[in-house]
Amino acid sequence: MKVSKFGGSSVASAEQIKKVLNIVNSDSERRIIIVSAPGKRYSDDVKTTDLLIRLYEKVINQLDYTHKKQEILNRFKDIIDELPLETDILTEIDRTLESHIATLKDQPERLLDALKSSGENFNAQIIAAYNNEQGIPTIYLSPQEAGIIVTDDPGNAQILESSYDKIKEIRNTNKKIIIPGFFGYSESGHIVTFPRGGSDITGAIVARGVKADLYENFTDVSGIFRANPTVIKHPEVIPEITYREMRELSYAGFGVFHDEALQPLYRYRIPVVIKNTNRPNDLGTYIVHDRQINHDKVVSGISCDKGFTSINIKKYLMNRQVGFTVKILKILEKHQISFDHMPSGIDNISIIMRSSQLAGKEQKVLEEIRHYCEIDELNVEHDLAILMIVGEGMSATVGTANKITDALAQAGINLKMMNQGSSEISMMFGISTQDADAAVKACYENCYNR
Amino acid sequence: MKVSKFGGSSVASAEQIKKVLNIVNSDSERRIIIVSAPGKRYSDDVKTTDLLIRLYEKVINQLDYTHKKQEILNRFKDIIDELPLETDILTEIDRTLESHIATLKDQPERLLDALKSSGENFNAQIIAAYNNEQGIPTIYLSPQEAGIIVTDDPGNAQILESSYDKIKEIRNTNKKIIIPGFFGYSESGHIVTFPRGGSDITGAIVARGVKADLYENFTDVSGIFRANPTVIKHPEVIPEITYREMRELSYAGFGVFHDEALQPLYRYRIPVVIKNTNRPNDLGTYIVHDRQINHDKVVSGISCDKGFTSINIKKYLMNRQVGFTVKILKILEKHQISFDHMPSGIDNISIIMRSSQLAGKEQKVLEEIRHYCEIDELNVEHDLAILMIVGEGMSATVGTANKITDALAQAGINLKMMNQGSSEISMMFGISTQDADAAVKACYENCYNR
Repeated sequence: MKVSKFGGSSVASAEQIKKVLNIVNSDSERRIIIVSAPGKRYSDDVKTTDLLIRLYEKVINQLDYTHKKQEILNRFKDIIDELPLETDILTEIDRTLESHIATLKDQPERLLDALKSSGENFNAQIIAAYNNEQGIPTIYLSPQEAGIIVTDDPGNAQILESSYDKIKEIRNTNKKIIIPGFFGYSESGHIVTFPRGGSDITGAIVARGVKADLYENFTDVSGIFRANPTVIKHPEVIPEITYREMRELSYAGFGVFHDEALQPLYRYRIPVVIKNTNRPNDLGTYIVHDRQINHDKVVSGISCDKGFTSINIKKYLMNRQVGFTVKILKILEKHQISFDHMPSGIDNISIIMRSSQLAGKEQKVLEEIRHYCEIDELNVEHDLAILMIVGEGMSATVGTANKITDALAQAGINLKMMNQGSSEISMMFGISTQDADAAVKACYENCYNR
Repeated sequence: MKVSKFGGSSVASAEQIKKVLNIVNSDSERRIIIVSAPGKRYSDDVKTTDLLIRLYEKVINQLDYTHKKQEILNRFKDIIDELPLETDILTEIDRTLESHIATLKDQPERLLDALKSSGENFNAQIIAAYNNEQGIPTIYLSPQEAGIIVTDDPGNAQILESSYDKIKEIRNTNKKIIIPGFFGYSESGHIVTFPRGGSDITGAIVARGVKADLYENFTDVSGIFRANPTVIKHPEVIPEITYREMRELSYAGFGVFHDEALQPLYRYRIPVVIKNTNRPNDLGTYIVHDRQINHDKVVSGISCDKGFTSINIKKYLMNRQVGFTVKILKILEKHQISFDHMPSGIDNISIIMRSSQLAGKEQKVLEEIRHYCEIDELNVEHDLAILMIVGEGMSATVGTANKITDALAQAGINLKMMNQGSSEISMMFGISTQDADAAVKACYENCYNR
């Protein structure tokens, strides 16, 4: 059995929804379908979810929201008319929006979650109704009916471990099941949305719950590219990567599939495939637990993410002082700052984190380090980019590091930092933000075009 | 004014002592001389200090020590006879040894320090007396007279900050001053020796106390080599390095000058020169606070030290968990383990330390990490060698990393780990112990012979 999730652009219009249902109906294994809210139909279009957030803002600021609501209703009316769908679902949509507003207007966080989730919820109902009308037995299941019970943390739901047993039961139906992505219900019955990448997370939770053989994640690209396509023209698609590789790449800015969605799949080793709704015959990228290493291409992908800061500390005889690093990290912990890398020498240490982690806290943190740690020198480097070279088996292959440093040296790019731990599947290089694109180009050339 | 320290082989025999005094007397700036105990005269010879430790062992085990004492007296008698020295200093030496044994035999640590320090102490008296007899006004100063007052921690003395004012006063003399290295006196009047590299430390303390213009460290090599001469045939001598470079190199196994001796010099920026007693006209190696970068040779030295262990930890979503690293480091701190490097990925971390740090504690430490840190995987890698590439300005020079990774790749050496922090003067590479010598050769070739 497959769980198939379709992203926003895959379900943005009647035409796209028909494509999706062709895909779904062409394979009897595709039994459980997770759908997003209607996304962009063209590049300047506005996502339904964003319209819903604007509606929320109008309501909360006690402004007239009729026009905004109508805009949303029109998005769904276009879909309903073009399919065409016979049922009078639009009245129901309108009533639901008004009901959320009426009952939750004094609880902004609840209202936001309820409105934000409506895009997925209405779309799932439309898609299920239409497929049913086409003669394919299909039912809509709300996340509550599907058993997706989550923590009561608005905008940041986490699945409850106990949900999986309930979700498992939805295996037992012969109909196609359509479930809206992006949200669950708390035990007290409230709608609570997942953090970013929400529909991916719903898909992963359901795939784990029903112990799917495959979790298909349909989007608008034919898989995961080896490098950012806005930097590299027509980069190769990666045929197969591991969860760990995926996590390193998505952490470092590969946005196709949200890394948090991998967590439910990890333990039961459920494979994921990233496929293109518009080119369903393309092979896509498989994300698996283990894979064979291709020794000609040990580097699976190259990413470069900007917006990092490094706190650099020098202290003479630092390595002799047991507990020095703990002192510094305790200060970061106190300020709830998580760091990403910590390359060090014997008398110095660099702590690298996303600049956003330090926002508004930098002065305080630096002061405390100066005050408590008896350091010799302290400086902060902003505008750092982190180049990540990711690949299983890379660390066991002689010359991989050289391939990269060679490419960077030839491109005249200075390496500020390097970091690679034992048995790692990634190497990290700290470079200037201004060198980021050139670095990706140079590495890509050296890894794949020679 | 210069403070000049002469190592064990420089003062091992009458012939060597004459060389030393020629050097001392040829330069009126050389006013304060620190001497070691007589070292080896030939490769199978035994150092006087080691004879004294054996004497201590005999005494403490209540064995007959007459023969061992006679061996020591003979070492000094040879020197006295060959100089020749007229005074009856040998009787005084014998009486001093017997007095230490008689008064301290029930305080083993005190006795060990008193006996161990005697080699330097007697040698300084002999050298001062001889130079005086030659018509050069020269006095012996005991560390107590010189003001070297230290903590009362046998075998591990640390200078008291208050000593420096007293030491400063010894500037005010026109005579040559000879001070024995390796020990000081505690405030309660006991002899306490410095840790390893003891005479280097005495020299550095005195140089700082008198604010010397230069601290000359005479030994039996013409400076610091760019790589280990047992691995590289006739390596280049480094003309000039900074304190920080020296520290990185001596940490990683360059034994010529003990890095702890740099600490007193650091603050007052007193330069050090490493020179050869047997070839005093060779330029030697200057160790300075700041230096010009030679862009053709940004790598100052290459070292590779064996005997490291890496604890490798994997944990999914490690970087999201604020405080995870602290938990692990707290366990190390509790066991008084200091680590040297900590390269990390987003889901894994390697903690590298000298294997000796873990000795007898490994199982316990691993158990505690498993128990308290909710990790996914834990493994330990022994037989690790740490290749250190050291050079000021290296991190600002494009292509340095590439030079090294290129050399290693061509030699077929796999890089297990890499680590270089911001504004660093060293790069660290973790490799197999069996690759250590080949790595040094490959890097040396690539850095200096191309």
